[in-house]
Amino acid sequence: MKDDPADPRLAERTTAREELLRGHFLHVVRDTVQLPDGGAATREYILHPGAVAIVALLDDGQVVMERQWRHPMGRVMLEFPAGKLDAGEDRLACAKRELLEETGYVAREWAHAGVMHPCISYSDEFIDLWFARGLTPGRRQLDPGEFLEVFTATPAQLMDWVREGRVTDSKTLACLVWLQNVLAGHWVLDWQRESGA
Amino acid sequence: MKDDPADPRLAERTTAREELLRGHFLHVVRDTVQLPDGGAATREYILHPGAVAIVALLDDGQVVMERQWRHPMGRVMLEFPAGKLDAGEDRLACAKRELLEETGYVAREWAHAGVMHPCISYSDEFIDLWFARGLTPGRRQLDPGEFLEVFTATPAQLMDWVREGRVTDSKTLACLVWLQNVLAGHWVLDWQRESGA
Repeated sequence: MKDDPADPRLAERTTAREELLRGHFLHVVRDTVQLPDGGAATREYILHPGAVAIVALLDDGQVVMERQWRHPMGRVMLEFPAGKLDAGEDRLACAKRELLEETGYVAREWAHAGVMHPCISYSDEFIDLWFARGLTPGRRQLDPGEFLEVFTATPAQLMDWVREGRVTDSKTLACLVWLQNVLAGHWVLDWQRESGA
Repeated sequence: MKDDPADPRLAERTTAREELLRGHFLHVVRDTVQLPDGGAATREYILHPGAVAIVALLDDGQVVMERQWRHPMGRVMLEFPAGKLDAGEDRLACAKRELLEETGYVAREWAHAGVMHPCISYSDEFIDLWFARGLTPGRRQLDPGEFLEVFTATPAQLMDWVREGRVTDSKTLACLVWLQNVLAGHWVLDWQRESGA
């Protein structure tokens, strides 16, 4: 399959941008684009700084999970730890920070798995997927007004919960694609030891 | 693991809603919520009608894929066929409509796999995941200004592309969790034959 990410038979070209919303949290723009056939269209979407998600592997084979209320869903969701990049923040630094803040764990080794795009039609967000192992528990440092519960589960339990519809969060599913294939030996991660660890 | 979706230690309660944006495409609100500790916070998110994604299995073992320019990504993405629900539309009816419109295929059998939530922190979108088989090719019916290319791939190719970072779309990754586990015989789909087919 020929796969040109800039294929001129499909590509759109931005001709104008309008700011639609600068909320406390969401930043929305409307671009006017020129279509491949020369026609015009508008594209509204969210500008997002990007995020990370972490599969933290405990020595007993379980992984670290979170239960968190997600207001747009109106319910508690089961998720891997994750969080947004601070301005200019390195992605691995962000993964270490979020894992520590939300769960209290520090990892001796890290491996970058891949990237996923949660919402390609209306957000430019990417979520960088990381694996961590050699975990040492410590004290978590939640932001004020942040409420979440940490728990652990086996990968087999997690897959059952996906099948049963109890795990539906996209970043968690993306991490599970990696976790399942890594554990099966199909895919190999490039583990990096923390300097000084 | 105790899993109460309405756990009062985590749940937030909406006390007010403000309309932030009604664009051509995006609808954004800001809710004021009461936190579990009684404090207040605001939550900005997109109201979305929901969507479907389809894993269409060809008799030769390949699946039907699309290449489509995604403006927020600034590139052509590799995806399973998908689309938004029309107002009041049944989810399976939407899956049939989108598969036909975008790829031209009609399926003899359908199975509902699950649901995924692409963007739980700032959108209420769900994507319903469907499998289709017994495919008959026909003429696709793209909307004006819609440009996308249909191609086929084996599941093994798709998994390689995930590993290599060429497939990063969240709904496609969610479908692949299902596809991989169904093909491995771990998960079983409940196939329904089209009446009259």
